[in-house]
Amino acid sequence: MKPVAIILSGCGVFDGAEIHESVFTMYGLAKRGVEYVCFAPDIPQMHVVNHLTGEVVEDESRNVLVESARIARGEIKSLSQLDVSEFSALVVPGGFGAAKNLCDFAVKGAEASVNPDVLKACKAFAEANKPAGYACIAPSLMSSVYGTGVKLTIGNDADTASALEAMGAQHIDQPVTGVVLDDRNRVVSTPAYMLAQSITEAADSIDNLIENLVKQIS
Amino acid sequence: MKPVAIILSGCGVFDGAEIHESVFTMYGLAKRGVEYVCFAPDIPQMHVVNHLTGEVVEDESRNVLVESARIARGEIKSLSQLDVSEFSALVVPGGFGAAKNLCDFAVKGAEASVNPDVLKACKAFAEANKPAGYACIAPSLMSSVYGTGVKLTIGNDADTASALEAMGAQHIDQPVTGVVLDDRNRVVSTPAYMLAQSITEAADSIDNLIENLVKQIS
Repeated sequence: MKPVAIILSGCGVFDGAEIHESVFTMYGLAKRGVEYVCFAPDIPQMHVVNHLTGEVVEDESRNVLVESARIARGEIKSLSQLDVSEFSALVVPGGFGAAKNLCDFAVKGAEASVNPDVLKACKAFAEANKPAGYACIAPSLMSSVYGTGVKLTIGNDADTASALEAMGAQHIDQPVTGVVLDDRNRVVSTPAYMLAQSITEAADSIDNLIENLVKQIS
Repeated sequence: MKPVAIILSGCGVFDGAEIHESVFTMYGLAKRGVEYVCFAPDIPQMHVVNHLTGEVVEDESRNVLVESARIARGEIKSLSQLDVSEFSALVVPGGFGAAKNLCDFAVKGAEASVNPDVLKACKAFAEANKPAGYACIAPSLMSSVYGTGVKLTIGNDADTASALEAMGAQHIDQPVTGVVLDDRNRVVSTPAYMLAQSITEAADSIDNLIENLVKQIS
């Protein structure tokens, strides 16, 4: 089986990839015997958030690829190097980075657009009909990738769900560990920290996502 | 049962707390029904390492507490607020941060000294005879905390083991998921990423550490 590509979006829930979700994504694949390769776009973060205070640090800039390398222990490649033919599937963990760095949904809501390199990479999996998994707020990329009617979940937040529906997606409410599989597109999503109240809930949510994804490529 | 205190040392294997080990520490406690509170010293990191290139970033400074807050999703306190009477046990995950920020073992080897706040906090658990767990390179703190003769493992790296023995510790070789329990001091250690070749090996190592620790407080 070819490895699975993981697209990270920085390092830290408020301005990057959600760390726990990213680690459980890697672990969920590895414990099922599936290899993975991490990627991230080589672009500046939208901003840097002090995770102790929650405040934006006005005079600091960090790079999405360089910070994502922290979660990946240095084993990561620039997203521009991703060749879909080398992979069996894709996973995009959440964190605000997915909605601030991979696209701008956190700022623009239903008017969001996706970073071109991210869109190209994600669309390549869609066009090859290779399975993909999106966690937490990462499903905000999905209508741009899969087009109108794609079925997805971000849990049950009404405002977020309604913005995603305005972008053409079909939102289906789910509890924290629930998954929505869009059969036609072979894409699965789960709420993770959009709803998780604990690290165990986040772990179970991501594990269900990975279980579903790996079933499709086994 | 009182919660377990976790001392983090930044965010990223090369200049801070090892992210996977930190996440598996939290997860190992939570899945066994044990609450935890994260702490980190409010001090500058020894340096900042670009985790993509492995190079030190000369003109950048980051704070250990602020960066640790990324792993803890903002739920973290300054180490100076740690009151041992509120906790049942302590865990210190690894990563170079343990040997660069909590102490200076990475630079000074057997001549290392421990940050005073870190030493005070760790010694408080030792003096209260409350259990503690140290992973990866964090056992480099243990001879300062527990004194001569403390039994520990960092795996089987001969140079590191010999530096720890020069500091007064008794090093016992272990495979990646092995643990060494010093019964008298109620302190347990495991190699984790000192030996782990994969995220699953690191997960199993940390899980064994936490299993052993939780047994002591159940």
